[in-house]
Amino acid sequence: MGKNLTKRSEDYSKWYNELVVKADLAENSAVRGCMVIKPYGFAIWEKMQAELDKMFKETGHQNAYFPLFVPKSLFEAEEKNAEGFAKECAVVTHYRLKTDPDNPSKLIVDPNAKLEEELIVRPTSEAIIWSTYKGWIQSYRDLPLLINQWANVVRWEMRTRLFLRTAEFLWQEGHTAHATKQEAMEEAELMNNVYATFAENFLAVPVIKGLKTESERFAGADETFCIEALMQDGKALQAGTSHFLGQNFAKAFDVKFTTNQGKQDHVWATSWGVSTRLMGALIMTHSDDQGLVLPPNLAPYQVVIVPIYKGEEQLEAISQVANEIVDDLRLRGISVKYDNRDTHKPGWKFNEYELKGVPLRIGIGPKDLEKRTVELARRDTLTKEFVAKDAVVNRVALLLKEIQDNLFEKAKKYREDHYTTVDTFDEFKEILESKGGFISAHWDGTAGTEEKIKQLTKATIRCIPMDSILEDGKCVLTGAPSKQRVLFAKAY
Amino acid sequence: MGKNLTKRSEDYSKWYNELVVKADLAENSAVRGCMVIKPYGFAIWEKMQAELDKMFKETGHQNAYFPLFVPKSLFEAEEKNAEGFAKECAVVTHYRLKTDPDNPSKLIVDPNAKLEEELIVRPTSEAIIWSTYKGWIQSYRDLPLLINQWANVVRWEMRTRLFLRTAEFLWQEGHTAHATKQEAMEEAELMNNVYATFAENFLAVPVIKGLKTESERFAGADETFCIEALMQDGKALQAGTSHFLGQNFAKAFDVKFTTNQGKQDHVWATSWGVSTRLMGALIMTHSDDQGLVLPPNLAPYQVVIVPIYKGEEQLEAISQVANEIVDDLRLRGISVKYDNRDTHKPGWKFNEYELKGVPLRIGIGPKDLEKRTVELARRDTLTKEFVAKDAVVNRVALLLKEIQDNLFEKAKKYREDHYTTVDTFDEFKEILESKGGFISAHWDGTAGTEEKIKQLTKATIRCIPMDSILEDGKCVLTGAPSKQRVLFAKAY
Repeated sequence: MGKNLTKRSEDYSKWYNELVVKADLAENSAVRGCMVIKPYGFAIWEKMQAELDKMFKETGHQNAYFPLFVPKSLFEAEEKNAEGFAKECAVVTHYRLKTDPDNPSKLIVDPNAKLEEELIVRPTSEAIIWSTYKGWIQSYRDLPLLINQWANVVRWEMRTRLFLRTAEFLWQEGHTAHATKQEAMEEAELMNNVYATFAENFLAVPVIKGLKTESERFAGADETFCIEALMQDGKALQAGTSHFLGQNFAKAFDVKFTTNQGKQDHVWATSWGVSTRLMGALIMTHSDDQGLVLPPNLAPYQVVIVPIYKGEEQLEAISQVANEIVDDLRLRGISVKYDNRDTHKPGWKFNEYELKGVPLRIGIGPKDLEKRTVELARRDTLTKEFVAKDAVVNRVALLLKEIQDNLFEKAKKYREDHYTTVDTFDEFKEILESKGGFISAHWDGTAGTEEKIKQLTKATIRCIPMDSILEDGKCVLTGAPSKQRVLFAKAY
Repeated sequence: MGKNLTKRSEDYSKWYNELVVKADLAENSAVRGCMVIKPYGFAIWEKMQAELDKMFKETGHQNAYFPLFVPKSLFEAEEKNAEGFAKECAVVTHYRLKTDPDNPSKLIVDPNAKLEEELIVRPTSEAIIWSTYKGWIQSYRDLPLLINQWANVVRWEMRTRLFLRTAEFLWQEGHTAHATKQEAMEEAELMNNVYATFAENFLAVPVIKGLKTESERFAGADETFCIEALMQDGKALQAGTSHFLGQNFAKAFDVKFTTNQGKQDHVWATSWGVSTRLMGALIMTHSDDQGLVLPPNLAPYQVVIVPIYKGEEQLEAISQVANEIVDDLRLRGISVKYDNRDTHKPGWKFNEYELKGVPLRIGIGPKDLEKRTVELARRDTLTKEFVAKDAVVNRVALLLKEIQDNLFEKAKKYREDHYTTVDTFDEFKEILESKGGFISAHWDGTAGTEEKIKQLTKATIRCIPMDSILEDGKCVLTGAPSKQRVLFAKAY
């Protein structure tokens, strides 16, 4: 392979870092912890955005936009939320630069342009949004308020990794207001279900829906729903969260409404978000030692056509066939790129599109012209077949569906193979060391035990699964009584 | 009118400010100079985005994403650009908050978390992008590089107005790299033409394409193309700019490439952008004393249906007809809202949708049921007509097209009526005071005269129109020789 990609079995983490860069998805920037999302990576993110946006609108949400900055006094209003994010806040303190008197080609911060109140670059927008909602909500007629925002946020993380943990990242954040506790709770669960459907049907990433324990909840939430995916190294990745915020923000920002019985009550809230972290989940779920593997639903182009030729004349004849296929595929709504560049050889192109995870590759050479066939190569299985030229469009349509399904099934099988029910702590440790994955075990429900297990094994409680059955058991660490199993894993 | 909207003739500026808020487009936030874009306003912006994005992709551009922050040392690399924006920069100096030891419920900036190098919140992204392009461009094969970014930017303006001038705004910024000067210049003009086409065909806002004078150019550009629109108060508004950046940024960031002759050369650059300011242009071009007027291409819903009824039974009968019309319109790709809320009366709704600029309103009452008609009201002309129920879909489709065209023609006529060619400075001043608008006059080409005219009249040179004819003349102020007319106006 000309790709020089580290193998997953050698060093999974290195494989991931290399793949993100070599497949042209993203790279580190000149700003500590901030990434540049390159056009190929951004095209995938755009497809995620478009699908999620559609799903949000279908469930009655509207987009809006709120300021990037949060004045410190608003930021600290909801104390738990503020405390949770305080250590990661980028702070704007000045609003002007001036020429350095000692070096006229340089600039310095103008000490006379200090802000009266510092501005926090939003790490999340509950504070600025709830200070706004106060003006929007007076009556039950104004509810529910169902709003989403696509935005950039900043959390000053010390250890960053492309897509998985970056100081600035792109996300959407839904912020809804409701008249009743039940309605807000239902909304939070609904949006977690939307995320799960999106992850499974669109990203082909199987997820487990659950609730976070108190210590893993969003700062300021009363309950956090989540979807948890499993990566190929046996570590879990939190792919989305949806929070029931109770009346915490309504109380912090004094947002009351008149009920249909004429009483005054604080509003109930949710917030929910997924981010460019999903790119990490997508990459780590499906890709292999040859490079990226993309589900057809997300591929910037689903099919690439590479001509194999010597000389202008052959290229012309092949191009005629290729262009017919391009037209036919586009008519069927299939995205396709015909790479007829003369600056690169076919072998180089094959490598390139394998690395970039294009689901299907069509090769056309002089022999294919004679036989009226093309060579069709699947990225997911790396298998090839010859197909009659006239049958190619139908075959491509069928295969794209098959690849999408196959990727999901393969990932699901991996997860099922890495889901272990254990009853003793020895077993717990053994499984974690030998094969990793999700471990279903009883837990005594205390934060102390949760913390102790984390210290001993680095595994955390990923969630209390929504489909968890109530059963009597004993905590895997302390032996204290437990009413249901929870899901442990080492996590990103 | 229940709207209490100030009349344009009384106070145009107040009318605008009220309209933006009352039509639910945007409002000021708790952050000085930053706005909240409300769902109705954001839905219009989304339509602008979608159309522009399509036009950019059709002209070969790809989207990407670059960091929000620019390290000070990169920011100052291109000196003219840095100097131009230095006075408006929000600066991040710290990355952490901590609990205030004197008041444990409050937070303070942690003095131990001072950044080694300050970060500028991007006022524009040339610096961060060109520092990235250095790694992307080695050979002529890497060119042209045609990239666009949708992003938020911050310019610390002292006097702000919703959409027109805000500290944070949303925009797109294209940043392209080319092998030759000519190609870069052609790209800059091409994108200015894309903006013009978009403004005229989509926003129904007629624009004049031109070049900026040196003193009005973007900081760091060798040439700035622009589109200039005329508002109903006779003031011009710059609606988009496209810059030929020469090799300024390539030199500042040392971006060289190997030409196809094997030589090393600096890359040629363009950048171009439009922003949420377009919302201001849209509002001020078409709206009237009754409220917003939206071109059908941009309306979040093009048609609203309001039932006029007494009692459940009538509502049910009307709803049956309304829902048939809704289905039929949607089949034709026309967006429609059926407002059957029982919390508001028809008169209230009529007012509301007039204020919000919905292009067509369908009213259905009990008499309409008998006659199998509906009442169709146009927002642009405020005229009404009765239409047979079975003819309504065709009529709506026709009227939507007519409204789109009519708005453009009306705005164009206004501009033509407010475009005056003058040859003396007395006339210049007289026209500016009496009716405003664009004034075509000779100018001696010096920055001194330009500045003097601005001081005397507040009018600036909006552009040197692309279609300006070369002719001998005398400067309207100094009488010095001039080779072509330029366009003056007071401007936003």
